[in-house]
Amino acid sequence: MSKRVPTSGKRIRDIGEFKLIDVLTAVVAGSQPGRLSLGIGDDAAVWRPSPGRHIVMSTDTMIEEEHFRLEWGDWKSLGHKALAVNLSDLAAMGARPRLALVSIGLTGSERDREIADLYRGMVALGDQFKTAVVGGDTTTSETAVMISITVLGEATSGPDSVMKRSSARAGDLIAVTGPLGLAAGGLEVLDQELRTLDGGPAMEEAFLRPKPRVREGRILARSGVRCAIDLSDGLLGDLPKVCSQSGLSAEIDELKIPVPLSIKWAFQDWIEVALRGGEDYELLFTVSPSVLARINRNFRRAGLRLPTVIGRMVDPGEAEPEVRLRMPSGQVEKLEPGAYAHWG
Amino acid sequence: MSKRVPTSGKRIRDIGEFKLIDVLTAVVAGSQPGRLSLGIGDDAAVWRPSPGRHIVMSTDTMIEEEHFRLEWGDWKSLGHKALAVNLSDLAAMGARPRLALVSIGLTGSERDREIADLYRGMVALGDQFKTAVVGGDTTTSETAVMISITVLGEATSGPDSVMKRSSARAGDLIAVTGPLGLAAGGLEVLDQELRTLDGGPAMEEAFLRPKPRVREGRILARSGVRCAIDLSDGLLGDLPKVCSQSGLSAEIDELKIPVPLSIKWAFQDWIEVALRGGEDYELLFTVSPSVLARINRNFRRAGLRLPTVIGRMVDPGEAEPEVRLRMPSGQVEKLEPGAYAHWG
Repeated sequence: MSKRVPTSGKRIRDIGEFKLIDVLTAVVAGSQPGRLSLGIGDDAAVWRPSPGRHIVMSTDTMIEEEHFRLEWGDWKSLGHKALAVNLSDLAAMGARPRLALVSIGLTGSERDREIADLYRGMVALGDQFKTAVVGGDTTTSETAVMISITVLGEATSGPDSVMKRSSARAGDLIAVTGPLGLAAGGLEVLDQELRTLDGGPAMEEAFLRPKPRVREGRILARSGVRCAIDLSDGLLGDLPKVCSQSGLSAEIDELKIPVPLSIKWAFQDWIEVALRGGEDYELLFTVSPSVLARINRNFRRAGLRLPTVIGRMVDPGEAEPEVRLRMPSGQVEKLEPGAYAHWG
Repeated sequence: MSKRVPTSGKRIRDIGEFKLIDVLTAVVAGSQPGRLSLGIGDDAAVWRPSPGRHIVMSTDTMIEEEHFRLEWGDWKSLGHKALAVNLSDLAAMGARPRLALVSIGLTGSERDREIADLYRGMVALGDQFKTAVVGGDTTTSETAVMISITVLGEATSGPDSVMKRSSARAGDLIAVTGPLGLAAGGLEVLDQELRTLDGGPAMEEAFLRPKPRVREGRILARSGVRCAIDLSDGLLGDLPKVCSQSGLSAEIDELKIPVPLSIKWAFQDWIEVALRGGEDYELLFTVSPSVLARINRNFRRAGLRLPTVIGRMVDPGEAEPEVRLRMPSGQVEKLEPGAYAHWG
């Protein structure tokens, strides 16, 4: 838990960098685990990993107007999401998160209590997964707020124990840890101001405060899953990466894709929303049918929602790996990969 | 060494994120050390630290127009500097750098060969210190190019073995590893187009391609130095941090500050340039007089320029810690702290 932090409500450009660092130091003070020796206030932080562990690390940046708008949500949610998308990368590897290093760029118009809230959102999410938030760097970014986070986690042993995109095998089932399309629905709700839509608040929540599937990822890795990815770019953005890196095609079944009724009701093109929407941050994994029962048992024991099987990895023969959709009519159609469009 | 990379010269928005990642993967291919198991292309990288070591980490972001202008230098220099300022933080702790995780934000107008050059600059500097460059994240940043780097290093043992800002003791000498003011001069040269100035090219070099004092930092820590900081914000930006965190005042001697003649000739206010200029990335450290001889011996043996003693840490008594300057006249003057102005 973070300490009570006395903020002035003044703008960052008026209080200056040093006072801001004092505020942030107080916010993260409760967030330091035993093995972290030095946090904010020196040139670097020092951390002692558990003996014999491998370090798993990832970095992800969110930029105002590209990834978020300040009017969409509060600063605390923004902090939550910035850390969540990073933890999701570790979840996809099956690693245990330990540390998050934060670097922020501010225009100077932000108020100190807003930035304290940003950090409170990170610390609250970090606490859920025993992950310490470490200060890092604050800098000026005249045109847009920028939040860049690097997360470090631990894996029990070498690269064979982490889940990789390249480890799918022909005959593996394809499964996802939760519903698809909610976050894309939430973006529409915010953008078009559809808050009164049936299920709208849940969609908004999915977009603004995604839940990184850290526990699911660790159980999957321990249960013997070798191939996973997190769905940040949508099913048709991310599944093709598994296909090309594993040299396999994927066949998914439209009827099996877990699309919430609220999405089906709200959007005529709901299948596109579910396939290409992105930002759900559920895990997609592939697994041999014989291991699935063990996974379900372990998920049930941990009180987690059971994964949904949506299709199967298949040998492409001489052809290029592709993603195919089996429609309710029984007809099979090749789908074009469609990542969330960067540099659109 | 990085491999030959076939670039098209096309703009990033035309080739897309996936082709860009192919290019960057090829550039960093030669840069992976033995213990790095997974680099670009998965959700996270996996690294095995040396047994028993502590991890030292730091993060620093550079944003176009705030920290650099693209017309000032080539992309390779920009990559060099973005990594150098991060390695400098590890140098100030006395740590051995091992890994750099890179996150970049691009407008899309950049050409692939420019971004390949950016990474080449990082890889070339990383190679000098056996530091692997790991891909990380690429994203859109409509208004400004952004480069955020997190570096990980190793220290032989716990927090007592790293150099901290809070460990200065009364009576310690204050020393710096090299000349001050060159980088600030270089910024003037670039900004005012004074390239024909005497010593101008060396100033430009100091500003565009600073040398992180990694070897110096490791020798200092091994020689028994407990307190150091890197001079990113200038002597009067950084020395006050050592003073306040150590609860001591500092007395520095104007005649001892190593200011290059070219700076004295070019700038009437050369003492201000040297005291407040910033971005020199030399190390400042404090050390008991008895240890200094050992440091000089170890630096000489390693073929490094000997540090210059510029003053002494003193007990402030009942007063607040402050920085004082002894002028050539013998008069002593209190100096106002003056960091490089963020949110100026």
